[in-house]
Amino acid sequence: MGKRISFWFEFASTYSYLSAMRIERAAEALGVSVDWEPFLLGPIFAAQGWTSSPFNLYPAKGRYMWRDMERLCARQGLPLTRPDPFPQNGLPAARLALVAREMGHIAPFVRAVYGAQFGRGLVISDPHVLASCWAEAGLPPEAMERAKAPEIKAALFAQGERAAALDLFGAPSFVVGEELFWGDDRLDQALALAAQS
Amino acid sequence: MGKRISFWFEFASTYSYLSAMRIERAAEALGVSVDWEPFLLGPIFAAQGWTSSPFNLYPAKGRYMWRDMERLCARQGLPLTRPDPFPQNGLPAARLALVAREMGHIAPFVRAVYGAQFGRGLVISDPHVLASCWAEAGLPPEAMERAKAPEIKAALFAQGERAAALDLFGAPSFVVGEELFWGDDRLDQALALAAQS
Repeated sequence: MGKRISFWFEFASTYSYLSAMRIERAAEALGVSVDWEPFLLGPIFAAQGWTSSPFNLYPAKGRYMWRDMERLCARQGLPLTRPDPFPQNGLPAARLALVAREMGHIAPFVRAVYGAQFGRGLVISDPHVLASCWAEAGLPPEAMERAKAPEIKAALFAQGERAAALDLFGAPSFVVGEELFWGDDRLDQALALAAQS
Repeated sequence: MGKRISFWFEFASTYSYLSAMRIERAAEALGVSVDWEPFLLGPIFAAQGWTSSPFNLYPAKGRYMWRDMERLCARQGLPLTRPDPFPQNGLPAARLALVAREMGHIAPFVRAVYGAQFGRGLVISDPHVLASCWAEAGLPPEAMERAKAPEIKAALFAQGERAAALDLFGAPSFVVGEELFWGDDRLDQALALAAQS
């Protein structure tokens, strides 16, 4: 197994953008391998009675989140553009991410989608946007079709069941052994634990 | 005015404990003065439809928070005992904190209350517990009576109005100039900004 960290992300999640853009390099520097785990927060939020992002349901928290993201993106040297609408529908991107994972090439696709959405404010349920992210990741166009296969739909559903079994309630989340860490703020602590294991 | 940070805390808040125990030393090291601002989260939570702590309303989040606190307290060398019930009623402690602030001695009292509650698991609405925190802070017992004065009740109510005007939605929160920071995770970033100002 070696030193590993599981990175659970939802494409619509702003703070997952921060982690997605830095986890691979940070993990590599510590000799840690990353398991990329896309999942959907919608069903988890719905189960706790939320019909939208908490950042929309609780406006003061939402206003704060965008200002916090501006500051954090500036520190990390990342562009930030607020996508409209927010949150976006991450379902098609999540299915494609599972196809990219089968092909051993998930990380560049995930970064391309986050960059399109939060770097440039593009709509990531738009097939044209997704096709250009796919190309940016160096993946062959004909492989995109597989996102519609029943196995891929089932695989994304299974991700949701694994997420619930892990007691995840938000994104990004990191799992190292039995330990759960929530939020980009805990990435370094999670990686430090993985590096020791 | 000089370099200043406002530290907004609610006694029932677990993550405020972490900040309360380290802010004064960390600020001093940067030449920053701390304005201690007690307030009650209850009315703010009620306004967003919450009838208890989000850590009780959302059980997965609550389980995570306690594990996260265990890890963070261990790193900071702080004891942690889960008080029962949780959250506690922080109202009498908040009024006393305003009295202690009038007397120019709020920080030691605030630390004593957090230590009693989260270090030793004591009930901070218990007058005996509060009296011993008051004594621990070196304050004269007869001054405790003033917590019942109408001016102090009004002052705590005014704190709530200031908190709402600042768009606060959780604790701890830090205000430096026009910038709001939420959570113990942002204390260092807030202090760094205060130190530059």
